[in-house]
Amino acid sequence: MMDLYPSRVDDKPVILERKDPVIYTKDPAAGPLDAEQLEFYQKNGYLFFERFFSEEEVRELRNELRRLWDANRDSDAEEVIREPESREIRSIFAVHRNSDTFKRLSQNQRLTDIVKQILGSDVYIHQSRINYKKGFAGKEFYWHSDFETWHVEDGMPRMRALSCSISLEDNYHFNGPLMVIPGSHQYFLSCVGRTPENHYRQSLRRQEYGVPDQDSLTWLVNQHGIDALTGPAGSVVLFDCNIMHGSNGNITPLPRSNVFFVYNSVENRLVEPFSGQSPRPEFIASRER
Amino acid sequence: MMDLYPSRVDDKPVILERKDPVIYTKDPAAGPLDAEQLEFYQKNGYLFFERFFSEEEVRELRNELRRLWDANRDSDAEEVIREPESREIRSIFAVHRNSDTFKRLSQNQRLTDIVKQILGSDVYIHQSRINYKKGFAGKEFYWHSDFETWHVEDGMPRMRALSCSISLEDNYHFNGPLMVIPGSHQYFLSCVGRTPENHYRQSLRRQEYGVPDQDSLTWLVNQHGIDALTGPAGSVVLFDCNIMHGSNGNITPLPRSNVFFVYNSVENRLVEPFSGQSPRPEFIASRER
Repeated sequence: MMDLYPSRVDDKPVILERKDPVIYTKDPAAGPLDAEQLEFYQKNGYLFFERFFSEEEVRELRNELRRLWDANRDSDAEEVIREPESREIRSIFAVHRNSDTFKRLSQNQRLTDIVKQILGSDVYIHQSRINYKKGFAGKEFYWHSDFETWHVEDGMPRMRALSCSISLEDNYHFNGPLMVIPGSHQYFLSCVGRTPENHYRQSLRRQEYGVPDQDSLTWLVNQHGIDALTGPAGSVVLFDCNIMHGSNGNITPLPRSNVFFVYNSVENRLVEPFSGQSPRPEFIASRER
Repeated sequence: MMDLYPSRVDDKPVILERKDPVIYTKDPAAGPLDAEQLEFYQKNGYLFFERFFSEEEVRELRNELRRLWDANRDSDAEEVIREPESREIRSIFAVHRNSDTFKRLSQNQRLTDIVKQILGSDVYIHQSRINYKKGFAGKEFYWHSDFETWHVEDGMPRMRALSCSISLEDNYHFNGPLMVIPGSHQYFLSCVGRTPENHYRQSLRRQEYGVPDQDSLTWLVNQHGIDALTGPAGSVVLFDCNIMHGSNGNITPLPRSNVFFVYNSVENRLVEPFSGQSPRPEFIASRER
């Protein structure tokens, strides 16, 4: 298969135009998103739904989050990722398989109807995780396009996937909310440097490959600015697989845990990684239907 | 002299009430601050002045900032503090002595009239510095009360000093603006742990002593919340020496450099450090008039 989005092959960064649609539905009027919402997503690469889930739903999800924290405190399971400088749990992957509560959540029809409309097909979960982001010492996530990694390391061929982030705490400007560069999903930033084999364990804790260069990021921000996505617990952000995003650290006492589902179109199933290396394990990049 | 604010002497943190006034003027109606501004400062411990300096003044200050950056690139001067993990300049101290431009700025009468009104006496510069806070990799400053350090390490007897931060770039929510806990200046958080001799070189790059505990910080934030101080370049924040403040890191391309003057009342001159150790050098804590 031809590599439409080569990355980590050159010595210098290149900015390519997106070669895929952003919205795939053949019948935009069918809903659930209306024309204005579709246009916003097309242009900006994301949509924000305030209080998509009720307080009661959030309470239940937060209980499950805590249960999993306790259950995995001493776990050596590979799905459990810890902070670089401590034993604190940073993320737990594959929660759509290992937790009934989160499995049901990933199949929530109000949500999946929107996802299917955008991607114009049936979908499956490519990746899921919970991020704990405790207060005081929450570390930053540097800028990245998820697609760059999923393409190079997992063999996702085209930009036909999206992420859904469900906040389980109130997101303020000052506790490290998700930041996106609106409109950046229209460009592919090809990164420099080769990826070592089996580096994924390290990269889930701290990214070293597939990191965009500062000049390209400055160019993007000068063109499009930055949107920080804040709002009460239960709010949902849907964002395109290729949007440039990141988050600052969080020294406040206020935690910022969230649940994260990546939906991929069934017409965009993974092939061999474009890096030519071994694929990452199932719990990071699902190859099953 | 009796130590009204003991810190770094106990094994567990203690929260003490402030024993000093916040506003010292004997004639509040004399200005330049009006009653509403004085009341805000009394209650919250800070005041924000949007565009206190004009665009032209900011341009001149920014030029001087750049000139000092270039002039000190390879300097071994003790006033030049570098980032913990690189040779990048983080701060330059004592700019009110070593730069004519910043000396004039520190004596700006519109500013010093306000400072003298709050502190109710003549004042002198206890400390000055410029912070560069470049984009992409600006590190966080963890929560702290300046007074805690100035008291323990420099021998500042009472809470009768304030800081003035002049922003030379636009401050957004997402590029690591100054965060304060309004009202926290009414409490003194006594910290745990003894200070090693001559640790100041390290502490200017990364704080390890005089760090407030998480329970006390949580208590303060639950009571008073957090204000992030954002606004265009040329804006000024005045804040009480004992207000709890900090800033998150900054992964955005947008820098956040500022100039920083600490004014102390001439009636609050430094004595021997309350730690019983040697005082820190002049460029950090001035002992001259």
